[in-house]
Amino acid sequence: MSTLWDFRYAERTGRMEGSAIRELLSFATRKDVISFAGGMPAPEVFPYDKFRESCDNVLRDNGAACLQYGSTDGYLPLREMIAHRSTRYGIQVESENILPTSGSQQALDLLGRIFINHGDTILVESPTYLGALQAWKAYGAQFTTVPVDEDGMRTDLVAEKLRAGVKFIYVLPNFQNPTGITLSYERRLKLIEIADRFGVPIIEDDPYGQLRYEGEHLPAVVVLDSQARSQGTNYSGNVIYLSTFSKTLAPGIRLAWVIAPVEVIRKMVLAKQAADLHTSTFNQITAYEVANGGFLDEHVKHIRDVYRHRRDTMLDSLTEHMPEEVKWTRPEGGLFLWATLPEAIKTRDFFHTALDKNVAFVPGESFFAEGGGENTMRLNFSNAKPEMINEGIGRLSTVIKDHLIKNK
Amino acid sequence: MSTLWDFRYAERTGRMEGSAIRELLSFATRKDVISFAGGMPAPEVFPYDKFRESCDNVLRDNGAACLQYGSTDGYLPLREMIAHRSTRYGIQVESENILPTSGSQQALDLLGRIFINHGDTILVESPTYLGALQAWKAYGAQFTTVPVDEDGMRTDLVAEKLRAGVKFIYVLPNFQNPTGITLSYERRLKLIEIADRFGVPIIEDDPYGQLRYEGEHLPAVVVLDSQARSQGTNYSGNVIYLSTFSKTLAPGIRLAWVIAPVEVIRKMVLAKQAADLHTSTFNQITAYEVANGGFLDEHVKHIRDVYRHRRDTMLDSLTEHMPEEVKWTRPEGGLFLWATLPEAIKTRDFFHTALDKNVAFVPGESFFAEGGGENTMRLNFSNAKPEMINEGIGRLSTVIKDHLIKNK
Repeated sequence: MSTLWDFRYAERTGRMEGSAIRELLSFATRKDVISFAGGMPAPEVFPYDKFRESCDNVLRDNGAACLQYGSTDGYLPLREMIAHRSTRYGIQVESENILPTSGSQQALDLLGRIFINHGDTILVESPTYLGALQAWKAYGAQFTTVPVDEDGMRTDLVAEKLRAGVKFIYVLPNFQNPTGITLSYERRLKLIEIADRFGVPIIEDDPYGQLRYEGEHLPAVVVLDSQARSQGTNYSGNVIYLSTFSKTLAPGIRLAWVIAPVEVIRKMVLAKQAADLHTSTFNQITAYEVANGGFLDEHVKHIRDVYRHRRDTMLDSLTEHMPEEVKWTRPEGGLFLWATLPEAIKTRDFFHTALDKNVAFVPGESFFAEGGGENTMRLNFSNAKPEMINEGIGRLSTVIKDHLIKNK
Repeated sequence: MSTLWDFRYAERTGRMEGSAIRELLSFATRKDVISFAGGMPAPEVFPYDKFRESCDNVLRDNGAACLQYGSTDGYLPLREMIAHRSTRYGIQVESENILPTSGSQQALDLLGRIFINHGDTILVESPTYLGALQAWKAYGAQFTTVPVDEDGMRTDLVAEKLRAGVKFIYVLPNFQNPTGITLSYERRLKLIEIADRFGVPIIEDDPYGQLRYEGEHLPAVVVLDSQARSQGTNYSGNVIYLSTFSKTLAPGIRLAWVIAPVEVIRKMVLAKQAADLHTSTFNQITAYEVANGGFLDEHVKHIRDVYRHRRDTMLDSLTEHMPEEVKWTRPEGGLFLWATLPEAIKTRDFFHTALDKNVAFVPGESFFAEGGGENTMRLNFSNAKPEMINEGIGRLSTVIKDHLIKNK
């Protein structure tokens, strides 16, 4: 039934897309479906007991602060803990450089809010994280892309793009969502060199950096940028860095953070005040209580073991079952791998067939800001148990084999 | 130190104001200050034990759902509970009409996002809730106002304003923030009649409706609107209704909700997906567990008793101490009362003197979208204990008396 509201939507609602991927994900939540479609952590690794203990402690000892309004800036001990932990990875920051947000999605939204004018062009990887595209489209952003290969963003193609005019660069250097690929050390250096030359700043999104299952930790882009301008102890570089507790503690608490120059944090605080006043004090204080005192480090080791095993299971299973026309990445960490089929094949064409066989994936095309990728798919290996991974990849391989035969 | 980001702020950041009031509030948090400045619930009424018990239960029995990602639409049992409770107050809605948000501030933000084009005019009360002004200014809203008297919004002045072109009307009918005034039954009817005649929809913000300390409950504007169009059971009216758990459970969990036509909810869900993906599942499930099964009703009775006593204490104390030039409202509920001084007096002129005497209030002018109100102040009576209210009003009266004498 129509109401007076129907005629009053703002122009920007025309740019708000219900992402096709989320439509698909809603199918994938059926109980009998083995889903490689989402980006969910394994419920088996959530630290339930530690959360129970921490909630009990904070409500008993610090309940008034937990349940009361808090400041938009965020809970200071949490910001100090994040600053301290960041320093271990070479990110020299103070608590004033850190803003806790209601999930990384809010960080992306607030950055869009304070930086993007209608028509601004953002340089993103192709493919890239869908949530960033969604957040920034709402502010009228345009996207220009450079492809990703096995060493990450093709930095040899960046200068040409920057020459055409770019507001900022958005990059996911570690075990990228959706491909699982990591930006090499050489390309990280190259990226900051080009960005600096053209005077274009960078947003580095790093939700999975802690979840490395093999190989050496690579310094964050924000660290290399600081070193390049030899600024020593205080953070005021050209790279804004995002991370989150969603993959190391729990996504349900919606707690992430931004590291940025103080002036950017100030603007984000103003934007956040209007957007949601502040992030739940209860969640900030509980997360602090859970993470503090060494628990997070031990817990992350446990998550790495579980996910490494699941990644290996999926890789082995793919090798065993998939037809030779299918190629895939071998991520050193994170939650996803990326499969590529022959060029003529569209993965969305067998999405529903796969679902009928109770297995789900994400067709890759959603992750391409400028189109393409119809022959690709994203596979999540963190959420399903190893025996389900084997079973699911078996089912998916059968579907793909059938599809390839029919489309020969 | 300047960074590349400095030159890249979006135009809209020019409209993001750090509210003067929040600057002032930061002074008022000093331990020795008796603050009537904030809008905080009493920490003494937070249901700590119930929260501890509920957190323990949900993490034990429903932990995977609590800590995992959830849907943007919100936790269904919570939406059903809100729908059920709304029906008791005559708001005929289904769960599909309800969207849980990360506090009411997010509801205001999302409504701005989907409805406000740059330059749109919103009709608000004068004075009105500051957070709404802040949220909507970010989208380029203009404001036109009608004054409030002892029966609330001056509905006799509304038609003239609507004639000039208004996107929607924003009203806080119960124990309004900042004045504590309630919109009379007759004016509620009048408001929907005029809005209907001019085809202008209404946003009804009702954070305090449950906190009535005397007098009869008045039907919500949304209810009268539905009755007027005799739509019986299904909600599809022209009034969007907002409420929150911040005043009945705890603001620290950041949990509120919107009631709106289904099509509006769909657009809000798209906007919310880009803004913060979803509201914390942990908080939604815990709040459901806390509120469900009769606890909330009993708890609200307790809050009413505590706040009624504090309101009475403040009213008595004002009568006892204030010079006769000072007038104030006598709210039937909510958290605030509103004092008016002689016209020539500016309350901000003695804000710092009051703070030196360790008592804080909010100068009223911040709440006026079109200026004025320099001689007014908002006083919160929920946060301080009765003995502190007496002491604080005593101090404030002394400051005001001195100021009046000096400014004779």
